[in-house]
Amino acid sequence: MSQHSLSAKPFGRLLLTGAGGNLGRQLRGALANWADVVRVSDITDLGEAAPHEEAHRVDLSDREAVMQLVEGVDAIVHLGGISIDAPFDDLLEANIRGTYNLYEAARKHGIKRIVYASSNHVTGFHPVTSVLDTDAAHRPDSLYGVTKCFGESLSRYYFDRFGMETVCLRIGSSFEEPKNARMLVTFLSYRDFIELVRCSLFTNRVGHAIVYGVSDNPASWWDNGKAGFLGYRPRDSSAPYAERFPAVAPNAELADAAQRYQGGPFVLGEPMQGAER
Amino acid sequence: MSQHSLSAKPFGRLLLTGAGGNLGRQLRGALANWADVVRVSDITDLGEAAPHEEAHRVDLSDREAVMQLVEGVDAIVHLGGISIDAPFDDLLEANIRGTYNLYEAARKHGIKRIVYASSNHVTGFHPVTSVLDTDAAHRPDSLYGVTKCFGESLSRYYFDRFGMETVCLRIGSSFEEPKNARMLVTFLSYRDFIELVRCSLFTNRVGHAIVYGVSDNPASWWDNGKAGFLGYRPRDSSAPYAERFPAVAPNAELADAAQRYQGGPFVLGEPMQGAER
Amino acid sequence: MSQHSLSAKPFGRLLLTGAGGNLGRQLRGALANWADVVRVSDITDLGEAAPHEEAHRVDLSDREAVMQLVEGVDAIVHLGGISIDAPFDDLLEANIRGTYNLYEAARKHGIKRIVYASSNHVTGFHPVTSVLDTDAAHRPDSLYGVTKCFGESLSRYYFDRFGMETVCLRIGSSFEEPKNARMLVTFLSYRDFIELVRCSLFTNRVGHAIVYGVSDNPASWWDNGKAGFLGYRPRDSSAPYAERFPAVAPNAELADAAQRYQGGPFVLGEPMQGAER
Amino acid sequence: MSQHSLSAKPFGRLLLTGAGGNLGRQLRGALANWADVVRVSDITDLGEAAPHEEAHRVDLSDREAVMQLVEGVDAIVHLGGISIDAPFDDLLEANIRGTYNLYEAARKHGIKRIVYASSNHVTGFHPVTSVLDTDAAHRPDSLYGVTKCFGESLSRYYFDRFGMETVCLRIGSSFEEPKNARMLVTFLSYRDFIELVRCSLFTNRVGHAIVYGVSDNPASWWDNGKAGFLGYRPRDSSAPYAERFPAVAPNAELADAAQRYQGGPFVLGEPMQGAER
Amino acid sequence: MSQHSLSAKPFGRLLLTGAGGNLGRQLRGALANWADVVRVSDITDLGEAAPHEEAHRVDLSDREAVMQLVEGVDAIVHLGGISIDAPFDDLLEANIRGTYNLYEAARKHGIKRIVYASSNHVTGFHPVTSVLDTDAAHRPDSLYGVTKCFGESLSRYYFDRFGMETVCLRIGSSFEEPKNARMLVTFLSYRDFIELVRCSLFTNRVGHAIVYGVSDNPASWWDNGKAGFLGYRPRDSSAPYAERFPAVAPNAELADAAQRYQGGPFVLGEPMQGAER
Amino acid sequence: MSQHSLSAKPFGRLLLTGAGGNLGRQLRGALANWADVVRVSDITDLGEAAPHEEAHRVDLSDREAVMQLVEGVDAIVHLGGISIDAPFDDLLEANIRGTYNLYEAARKHGIKRIVYASSNHVTGFHPVTSVLDTDAAHRPDSLYGVTKCFGESLSRYYFDRFGMETVCLRIGSSFEEPKNARMLVTFLSYRDFIELVRCSLFTNRVGHAIVYGVSDNPASWWDNGKAGFLGYRPRDSSAPYAERFPAVAPNAELADAAQRYQGGPFVLGEPMQGAER
Repeated sequence: MSQHSLSAKPFGRLLLTGAGGNLGRQLRGALANWADVVRVSDITDLGEAAPHEEAHRVDLSDREAVMQLVEGVDAIVHLGGISIDAPFDDLLEANIRGTYNLYEAARKHGIKRIVYASSNHVTGFHPVTSVLDTDAAHRPDSLYGVTKCFGESLSRYYFDRFGMETVCLRIGSSFEEPKNARMLVTFLSYRDFIELVRCSLFTNRVGHAIVYGVSDNPASWWDNGKAGFLGYRPRDSSAPYAERFPAVAPNAELADAAQRYQGGPFVLGEPMQGAER
Repeated sequence: MSQHSLSAKPFGRLLLTGAGGNLGRQLRGALANWADVVRVSDITDLGEAAPHEEAHRVDLSDREAVMQLVEGVDAIVHLGGISIDAPFDDLLEANIRGTYNLYEAARKHGIKRIVYASSNHVTGFHPVTSVLDTDAAHRPDSLYGVTKCFGESLSRYYFDRFGMETVCLRIGSSFEEPKNARMLVTFLSYRDFIELVRCSLFTNRVGHAIVYGVSDNPASWWDNGKAGFLGYRPRDSSAPYAERFPAVAPNAELADAAQRYQGGPFVLGEPMQGAER
Repeated sequence: MSQHSLSAKPFGRLLLTGAGGNLGRQLRGALANWADVVRVSDITDLGEAAPHEEAHRVDLSDREAVMQLVEGVDAIVHLGGISIDAPFDDLLEANIRGTYNLYEAARKHGIKRIVYASSNHVTGFHPVTSVLDTDAAHRPDSLYGVTKCFGESLSRYYFDRFGMETVCLRIGSSFEEPKNARMLVTFLSYRDFIELVRCSLFTNRVGHAIVYGVSDNPASWWDNGKAGFLGYRPRDSSAPYAERFPAVAPNAELADAAQRYQGGPFVLGEPMQGAER
Repeated sequence: MSQHSLSAKPFGRLLLTGAGGNLGRQLRGALANWADVVRVSDITDLGEAAPHEEAHRVDLSDREAVMQLVEGVDAIVHLGGISIDAPFDDLLEANIRGTYNLYEAARKHGIKRIVYASSNHVTGFHPVTSVLDTDAAHRPDSLYGVTKCFGESLSRYYFDRFGMETVCLRIGSSFEEPKNARMLVTFLSYRDFIELVRCSLFTNRVGHAIVYGVSDNPASWWDNGKAGFLGYRPRDSSAPYAERFPAVAPNAELADAAQRYQGGPFVLGEPMQGAER
Repeated sequence: MSQHSLSAKPFGRLLLTGAGGNLGRQLRGALANWADVVRVSDITDLGEAAPHEEAHRVDLSDREAVMQLVEGVDAIVHLGGISIDAPFDDLLEANIRGTYNLYEAARKHGIKRIVYASSNHVTGFHPVTSVLDTDAAHRPDSLYGVTKCFGESLSRYYFDRFGMETVCLRIGSSFEEPKNARMLVTFLSYRDFIELVRCSLFTNRVGHAIVYGVSDNPASWWDNGKAGFLGYRPRDSSAPYAERFPAVAPNAELADAAQRYQGGPFVLGEPMQGAER
Repeated sequence: MSQHSLSAKPFGRLLLTGAGGNLGRQLRGALANWADVVRVSDITDLGEAAPHEEAHRVDLSDREAVMQLVEGVDAIVHLGGISIDAPFDDLLEANIRGTYNLYEAARKHGIKRIVYASSNHVTGFHPVTSVLDTDAAHRPDSLYGVTKCFGESLSRYYFDRFGMETVCLRIGSSFEEPKNARMLVTFLSYRDFIELVRCSLFTNRVGHAIVYGVSDNPASWWDNGKAGFLGYRPRDSSAPYAERFPAVAPNAELADAAQRYQGGPFVLGEPMQGAER
């Protein structure tokens, strides 16, 4: 890892991919507290960079561009790629080829810590009546979820083979506020999200860790007990928003798969091919 | 389920059996917040019904009476039956035949959600030095406990076969206050009991769930982690009552089975037959 | 237990209930090898008793009759009751009241070992794509299965409370030969059934044991590893009968619940009440 | 599925991909016993087709070609793709895009059963001192292994979402004979391989099953107990070949990762990119 | 156990070994709240005894001295012995022979409750990326840790054989304040330590219990869920001290075993023999 | 490890401690097949050494003597020490100090593989109605068993810290023939014992392994599934001896602890001190 001195910040340079997305925008500022230089990238234009920033417009499926993007950083927060269901060909380029490109570049540049934005949709076909811990079996609820499973498997390989550590964040629903009843269970506040990234970057040794990104909501499908070594303690909860989604009597929609599985509406999607766009 | 309109309450009509018992009396008022009409029943006279109530005096072993009792309700909180050890013939009528009658009537009337008052005595022969989760094996501590195991097995069948959902509440010791040292572990405040019923009625999908009914007491024999999807968060604790039952040095009574098993004094009972009353 | 002398047989007197049924007839002869006197009972007439036999015609729901039936025996093989789905009122009398009567009589007469004919139908709603061990959760597939769950719970209580040991035999399909494709998985030969009863009677200490009654068939849904202390080693297999039920391509009937759950056709039954007979 | 009559064979038409490979050649003949027509495909020329065969030369990454390949078959044995470590770009086309193409085509054509050649290399980074059952966590030992993890995740999705059943065969080392000491543990004889495919095709319902493809070798890293419902009983063993690889005293090579992990030499490979070939 | 009367304190006489050590000094005062007489011992001089105290200077390897030390007490808190890595011969005398002497003396004097100072170093070779519950396998990180494993095994024997109950406290790092970054995870405040001893002495029945001695720190390697019956609820946390050990970027020292295993620097020690001192 | 050449035997020199004991005498000849030189030791005189043997009379508690004993060997089979219950002071010298001496000497001489004679008595207080796998918790049934627990903990430490591999053999009852009914369950034939040692010496990598030493007896308390990587396949069984210990009806002795726990008569022993001899 690069050496840096004369600085009070623990990291010299951090890379944030997907900096232009919903969560990337939240994190962009926070990273500045932890690193002298924050390199940000996205497939879209990121606007003007702050003085401590280096902005790169990069398509993650472009191997050479990713190789340059990664050079000289101390650790990576990898939010880039597609974060909703999409045609397979697009997912393949962004989430499969792109994630491979990132890990292979990181390996060549000797980077040892990656925080990877996985998703609760890698286990979305578990029923809503079970509570999963962090070694629950993959049951992706969409092609999108399948590509996130790929990222978890790939990062496991890079850890076992090369000692590159990854924290896979199985992010719930991270928005300003919960938007529907399901999100009362899956809500991850922005503040808790940033804290989770902080724990993932600073815990001295993480191995290949999996943790659900979720606030301290009243009801929960996920138990992070086995990731207790990360020290993540959520401070927020969906409880203040509960009254916006008033309780209703259970009804016939129970038969709807979107009500039965943790993935919610994702489980109803149909695979899309590139040609169908 | 019945349709109802022009009402802000989520349920049209709820049925509460065992409404005249200790817990039934606590719950009777609360249900009015959630349903336009609360139908209450007991084997004893329930006194005058409130305007929003329908009071029925029903022996649960009377199949026809139960069939009528259940008609037209949206969900059931089934506290009825015998809740202490008793002669087997009585338990058989109230807790076995009675519970069967209730489920079969519910099936015929298309009712899809039942909250069933099971008991911690279905696992009372586990030692006090173990912590059980909600899939701990049945180890009933009394014939009463055996009949509650029956209720759990029966409701499992009705869920697997007919999709009728049940939450089995393995209720600890629900009283105004803890009455002895054991209850410092098993105490369930009335407020927490009501909250647990609320979670059981309103969680969108519960499948066949098992949860211990216990407050947030300092010591615990039960871990509700696997029922986290219900969103039950106790607010009370036995801690304020601890000083009433001052700590003593462990002594020779350790050899007493009532001290060794979670069921407490129940484990010392002897089976009673009907003829022995 | 009774003392007996001048005899090479390990038991003085064994009781076999349900001696007139399919399995009872198989076992009747075998017991004579292990006991000086074999007391046999059934609700139907058992014909003439052999010299070493004592034949009783007893309705198990008759408490007094059962009390007399049990007197003086050293151990019990309890096959009695109803072994198919049936109206609930009948099951209640034969399998619930009857089994209670038997255990309570055994307790009063100091009998310490019972072999109880439970059934694979206590777990029949587990899918055919899972392999269960002997502490798999109850998922009965019928009211019949529910009453067998009751027997398992009741016998657990009598063991924990009074030290009366029971081996619960979750019998698969015990016939001369497998009769259909499902039985290629669930087949228990008569010879293996008898061996399993032998192990259950003679193992020095069994506690409250559960074991699946199944031969060494090629495919299996059940793993008896945790009951290895019984020493049961099946010698037969359904393999020789496989060609009678030729393999077919999986087809649309996959959607049939009877194909999806271990209980087979049982899972399609509808509860019957006594009044409906 | 297609209807066929006037035939004693259980399947009308089976598709075998990768028919030109080592295992494909073994299986090609066997399938003729189970289907009237065997459609075989490979990326290389398959030579002349037998009368009961339909030979297709197909690149699995060609979506349209795969769509046609799959039309009209009753079930698929998918051995196609790359079965050794290879440059990522090649693996991506053959094993990721190719497997997606196959499943999506199968979905559109209503095919409900696929036997998928996964690999023991999905768990190759588990140590040789542990015994895995079939729900062991993914720990791929190579990029090849990562792509096989993808296939397992993808097929899980198609099962949960569309009810298409897959048996994932985590094949050990299937050759005429074991070739080195590691293969004494991982050997799968051709005869046992064919038997495993037979079980996978004919078991009435398999859900999404995982099973290790391994003979009954003396030492084992894998326990297929949870897949017992498939009825796979290996008949061969590596034991007769043991003397070819004489035991040696454990030595300094213990430190070699290839000796420490189940994946053997695979764990020493380095990722290859397409551009590096 | 001895009878005492005319006293409001639950214990007549408690024995504290190792009273002169770091933790012994903390506990010495607290015990006076729970017992009329506190007998304190150490291998070093304990200074003047308070009026309610009986001070003994005892080498635990002196069997006769220990026999006298134990006489007449109601329960024992056994902190004595060596609590750091040390030459084996010393550990053998203090921690192995000494602990045996104590248990054997306790048996002869009929003492039924011992609180044993085990150590987190019995599991110190588990990686820092795992969370252990209280039945985690022994993986001692030092000869010191091995002798604490001995104490746990020995006390298990005395419980199973003679019903003498022990709570094994796997103490983390109990100091006034955390002294380094590792202690942010392992910190046990003095107040929480005393509370844990209180729970261990007063819980009516503990069997042979194991519990980690740790405060409610943000990050945790240990889950005390299975010891919930003890009622231990830590009130302190290392969080207020976190800023003293500022987060740093993970770096090359990751390869250092002291960073990879929970035991920290202990795992780097070399066995010392007595002759080497 | 030492180099040796011009020899067809895989080991140059093996050390066998306890060579004069029951099992040592069985193994002494077998080792000659695997090593050019067999060094044998015992506390008693071993008689004349064969040409390929080096006989040493050594008290394992003599550190210097053990240091010399171990020099120059490639691997060790450590049967030495006391193998029955005995006064603690004796056990401490032979099994605790002696085993420490052996491991520490092995470390200094760079020996990497030890086969350690542990005992089923490390888990002898598990009930006879449970089946243990190889990671069952320690529940020693005697002080002897406690010292064997020490050996398992110690060897775990030497593996985790120094990479020295050990196979702990939890030997059942290894005699010419079973001597009583308990041994029908615990019997290990001499032939199977030798085979187990062979597997333990020659498996390329064993880590810190635990395996029960037991033949393929009809009834079993132990499941070696997790040690399948050792390739141990017993060829013998206690079955041929079953008729010598005819089955009896379970009787009042059930209450005898020796009948209830796997350790048999060991569980009834009383601790002996050195002074009591």
